Amino acid sequence: MAISFVVEKEVPGSLARAGRLITPHGEVKTPAFMPVGTQGTVKGLRPEEVREAGAQMILANAYHLYLRPGSHRVKALGGLHRFMHWEHPILTDSGGFQLFSLAATMSIGDEGVAFRSHVDGSAHFWRPEDSIAVQEELGADIIMAFDQPVGLPAPRERVEEALRRTLLWARRSLAAKTRADQALFGIVQGGLEEDLRRQAARELRSLPFDGYAVGGLSVGEPEDDMYRALEWTVPELPVDKPRYLMGVGLPRNLVEGVARGIDLFDCVLPTRMGRTGTALVPGGRLNLRNAAYAEDPRPIQEGCDCYTCRYYSRGYLRHLVLAKELLGLSLVSLHNVRFLVRLMESMREAILKGEFAAFVEKFRQEEGREVEA
Amino acid sequence: MAISFVVEKEVPGSLARAGRLITPHGEVKTPAFMPVGTQGTVKGLRPEEVREAGAQMILANAYHLYLRPGSHRVKALGGLHRFMHWEHPILTDSGGFQLFSLAATMSIGDEGVAFRSHVDGSAHFWRPEDSIAVQEELGADIIMAFDQPVGLPAPRERVEEALRRTLLWARRSLAAKTRADQALFGIVQGGLEEDLRRQAARELRSLPFDGYAVGGLSVGEPEDDMYRALEWTVPELPVDKPRYLMGVGLPRNLVEGVARGIDLFDCVLPTRMGRTGTALVPGGRLNLRNAAYAEDPRPIQEGCDCYTCRYYSRGYLRHLVLAKELLGLSLVSLHNVRFLVRLMESMREAILKGEFAAFVEKFRQEEGREVEA
Repeated sequence: MAISFVVEKEVPGSLARAGRLITPHGEVKTPAFMPVGTQGTVKGLRPEEVREAGAQMILANAYHLYLRPGSHRVKALGGLHRFMHWEHPILTDSGGFQLFSLAATMSIGDEGVAFRSHVDGSAHFWRPEDSIAVQEELGADIIMAFDQPVGLPAPRERVEEALRRTLLWARRSLAAKTRADQALFGIVQGGLEEDLRRQAARELRSLPFDGYAVGGLSVGEPEDDMYRALEWTVPELPVDKPRYLMGVGLPRNLVEGVARGIDLFDCVLPTRMGRTGTALVPGGRLNLRNAAYAEDPRPIQEGCDCYTCRYYSRGYLRHLVLAKELLGLSLVSLHNVRFLVRLMESMREAILKGEFAAFVEKFRQEEGREVEA
Repeated sequence: MAISFVVEKEVPGSLARAGRLITPHGEVKTPAFMPVGTQGTVKGLRPEEVREAGAQMILANAYHLYLRPGSHRVKALGGLHRFMHWEHPILTDSGGFQLFSLAATMSIGDEGVAFRSHVDGSAHFWRPEDSIAVQEELGADIIMAFDQPVGLPAPRERVEEALRRTLLWARRSLAAKTRADQALFGIVQGGLEEDLRRQAARELRSLPFDGYAVGGLSVGEPEDDMYRALEWTVPELPVDKPRYLMGVGLPRNLVEGVARGIDLFDCVLPTRMGRTGTALVPGGRLNLRNAAYAEDPRPIQEGCDCYTCRYYSRGYLRHLVLAKELLGLSLVSLHNVRFLVRLMESMREAILKGEFAAFVEKFRQEEGREVEA
């Protein structure tokens, strides 16, 4: 087993729990949020900064790194950890999501997907075996099964067809895997159909995956639908394996996800928001372009322990954002990563102290407040 | 006196020397190179990184900060040091150079310059008194007299006229200065006319400036002309005051400048080159976009002690540059800053050891080598 997972504490009457995920590159205390390093870098941040912000594991994308610089090159340069100077846990996404959202898909069949690169238009064909081979070249601690997500809303027949293929590809991903030092997670699809989600989770749990992801959510559906899909799916998954909700990073979604039994999350939200000059604060967000901050000496968030809030005023950050200075984007992104990681740390602490229900109640009240800007 | 300057060691038979410049925000060991933080940030770098790279003093631009965010706002936010989180020495340029190169100049007279902002087209009028007032609001340790540079080549009459105005404005800059905790440097202009350069230096040395800059060079003239202008100018300047060659940062120009008695330099070169993926190396430069580096595990420069060279391969940096990732630009800029600062440190060490002539000879030989890429 490449990884092991220990549940440290469960919340009575809830699926929420705190745990420890041990990987070849170190431990991840859960619940945890993974910043995204799409192309082998968490945008605008040094690895040391990401680590200092408390991030334990990051996500990188097989699709992007396959196209550029080429996964064989990453392998030739010592694998992804050494390549990007992040000697801590890494998870790679299988490319399924990117093939169906970013690339120009030319044909989809049970054998695989023909697509054109979004970078240079070149033609490629990926079978599940290709995704696994790419992820083995990259060498992350955790790799993902190749899947076919479906944008929502979608007619039941499309969801059914994609799920059938995803389950077929899950078995082929397992069979294709050769590296003993990598863990492989299965991905539960099934759209917003309760029976399909449950069936997918049951079928995947019968297979020897090291963990399970819930995919195909946070793709435009109402949030209550996302929560319902979790409530159908998570109870069907084994309690002794990590559970990962893909692509989710809004603070309230993290809290509601943990409350429904999720251990791991990833999202581009903190860095993408950072690049537009938008900062996460309790109960909302600050748009740092706002003229109100031009001479504001306060940090983004009073009391925040991040590097940005320790040394820089809203007035300075506004100046950097308006002047299109790289430092501004980096500093706001860094705060946002720290904000989400600290939220996860707070939830873990509340779970360990037996105070999670109170934490969730307080959080929901604060989320209801007026957004600051 | 806001600053003091001590010559520690002179090179016999040469104007080169090592010294210490003490400012309200700390000491600068000379000769020294100042990275440029045009808009209140050295592009793409954290202040801690700039410091760790060995930079002792940075330059910021009064013109840019006056237009955006407004020097009154920088003052309201605690002055430039606190604003940008750089609690070390800062020098601000007076805006003279920017008004005549970046802004749309509408009229120039002895009273001042009418110009339109390059940011939003708004109309402004600056007299020498305005430049000093802006620089006092910013609060740098060293501020510069307002001057009128001339692009080269230029007819003698234009150079004469601009010099007459520059000397007039130098006296008005001195008279306008009110802060006792800031030093004021005069700027020698005079184009490539020996008599004008000498006359300007003599006239300015009779005025109570705290240091002297050589301006209007590195603006397109042949390098030998730049060196000749230094040879006319520097001997006319007082030996007990710092001498600053503005806007110069090519490695060979730094060495030839120090050999001709210059103590301080500034240039955007290391960060501007960094943003195009070009790295300084001994004897030349690397274009990191080059396909030859795609799987090159070596750092930019073997043995370099910078953060970039300690942790990142040419292959990774090439990937970041081609993928337009912010981190790539930052990492290459950081190496380039360290490269120039280390060159200054090496020259200082050679001067203190009495080995400067040999250093210059060796450097000139290495500069003659093939450029690596």
